[in-house]
Amino acid sequence: MNEFELIKTLFAPLATAPGALGLRDDAAVIAAPEGSETVITKDLMVEGVHFLKETDPGKIAQKLLRVNLSDLAAMGATPQGYLLGCQFANGISEDWMRSFALGLAEDQRTFGLSLLGGDTTRTPGPMAFSLTALGHVPVGQALRRGGAKPDDDVWVSGTIGDGALGLAVAQGNYNPALDHASYLRDRLDLPTPRLELGAALRGLAHSAVDISDGLMADLGHIAESSELGIELNADLIPLSAAATAALASGAATLTDFLSGGDDFELAFTAPESARARLQALSQELNLPLSRIGRVHAENLGVTALQGGQALAFSRAGYQHF
Amino acid sequence: MNEFELIKTLFAPLATAPGALGLRDDAAVIAAPEGSETVITKDLMVEGVHFLKETDPGKIAQKLLRVNLSDLAAMGATPQGYLLGCQFANGISEDWMRSFALGLAEDQRTFGLSLLGGDTTRTPGPMAFSLTALGHVPVGQALRRGGAKPDDDVWVSGTIGDGALGLAVAQGNYNPALDHASYLRDRLDLPTPRLELGAALRGLAHSAVDISDGLMADLGHIAESSELGIELNADLIPLSAAATAALASGAATLTDFLSGGDDFELAFTAPESARARLQALSQELNLPLSRIGRVHAENLGVTALQGGQALAFSRAGYQHF
Repeated sequence: MNEFELIKTLFAPLATAPGALGLRDDAAVIAAPEGSETVITKDLMVEGVHFLKETDPGKIAQKLLRVNLSDLAAMGATPQGYLLGCQFANGISEDWMRSFALGLAEDQRTFGLSLLGGDTTRTPGPMAFSLTALGHVPVGQALRRGGAKPDDDVWVSGTIGDGALGLAVAQGNYNPALDHASYLRDRLDLPTPRLELGAALRGLAHSAVDISDGLMADLGHIAESSELGIELNADLIPLSAAATAALASGAATLTDFLSGGDDFELAFTAPESARARLQALSQELNLPLSRIGRVHAENLGVTALQGGQALAFSRAGYQHF
Repeated sequence: MNEFELIKTLFAPLATAPGALGLRDDAAVIAAPEGSETVITKDLMVEGVHFLKETDPGKIAQKLLRVNLSDLAAMGATPQGYLLGCQFANGISEDWMRSFALGLAEDQRTFGLSLLGGDTTRTPGPMAFSLTALGHVPVGQALRRGGAKPDDDVWVSGTIGDGALGLAVAQGNYNPALDHASYLRDRLDLPTPRLELGAALRGLAHSAVDISDGLMADLGHIAESSELGIELNADLIPLSAAATAALASGAATLTDFLSGGDDFELAFTAPESARARLQALSQELNLPLSRIGRVHAENLGVTALQGGQALAFSRAGYQHF
């Protein structure tokens, strides 16, 4: 298939929004709903850095889409569509590309999205994919990192550390029981962007971030942007059964979980007055929301206390650079 | 520099729009002006495919930005901002990255843009850069490929074939006089997106496209989308002095110019009633606008006649795939 055939057969069927113009024009034309503004983010994934060539191509596509949706969730945005840049390896099979597109098709249905445009090329080097996701929020209601206030509670959704453990499993550095291995790989390969939570936090949370670099590093972004400090109670960090087992066996430490990336949960701060509403929201969404710390004005940065002692971290967060 | 430092020192200063949030949040928040909608496009460039490593990094950045702006111009959109994905080679120097960012800074001033977000990573393979450009048009006024009508005139801006000749110069396959060599390299490396023209064509042209794949191929997109045919008079194709010299010396043929890519001029169709206005517009913009053919309903596709004979083409247009 040449570039035009590839776009026609694999990608045009994904361009379901009218404004995508069937991928047959120079650009897409989209409008945010009346009274809302556009939220836009872009992430890329490179073979050998963010994914292994052996990974199921559909999952590579889905992870790329989901990490971008996770950014939209952190802003409280409702997703609308995306643009895609593909650098396929010379000699890659049509089957491979078809699986990649099928992964996108599946997630488009799950998350209510349309492909809006993009570009496709061949590369002699490692494959790479970039994605720009668009969503919308009511004007002025986007959740921000810089909105935390002193005495806010610090909350986190889901469980922490599964991304780091999933990576260890993928790299062959950790071999837990099969059910845990399977769970952890899924958490790494197919994160769930917390879109409903993000939307529900508008007007409720003072600040939010998604956990891609690691809980400590990402809360560090909130602390820095808000010019405040955050103190965590490490004993309150929510762990999955798989992470609890890894901790119990000595295969991993709590600091590994707090500094590991790729959890794609939301961390956010909210006033004490929001506690009851957040507990109800946790029920409604069937998603654990855990209160793990407090914002304070005494000093900057993030500290995690365990039994009153500050945990020591050797690195600030996961970086692909 | 790690990823955070790189973003802080090189890219955050480019994020001049308030909605870019200083690149310190999970996503950017932007709004199209009242009564307008967002136009969005994405192109990528890979080392060894779209540019050579030896190219001035600032020019790589500027070309990437400009080819995207050319897509916005073809839709009649006014540019607003962009998101950038960088895969820098392992071991690339800070000087190289600084030059890349300086090229962007220069073009941001030229075109009135802000960086809105993006992602940066290292790659062991060839470098690659992707860019998503956003603009806006009054609601419903975007220029489309599919709007051509029978008996429309076919117009083109500037001169055709300089992109193809510039590539031959860059590859060492064509060695014209120095002034022509310099002109042609500039046309290849620093195309001028025809943004003022595109905006002025709203409500005046029936269809438009930018010439990236080659004049024949891109007019083919208009013909296909509009389900009409186009007949060109090859003797009316506007050529630069450098292209005229290449033609006279036998170094290139008219079919090379018509099928070569990277001209980044606009081709458009408009009714006969628009002729006077377009001629005046050409004066206002100090940009040649040439009437080179006609739209007809007899058959599909694009033909180019020279002295009444149809020119033969061995390929439909330039593809990077």
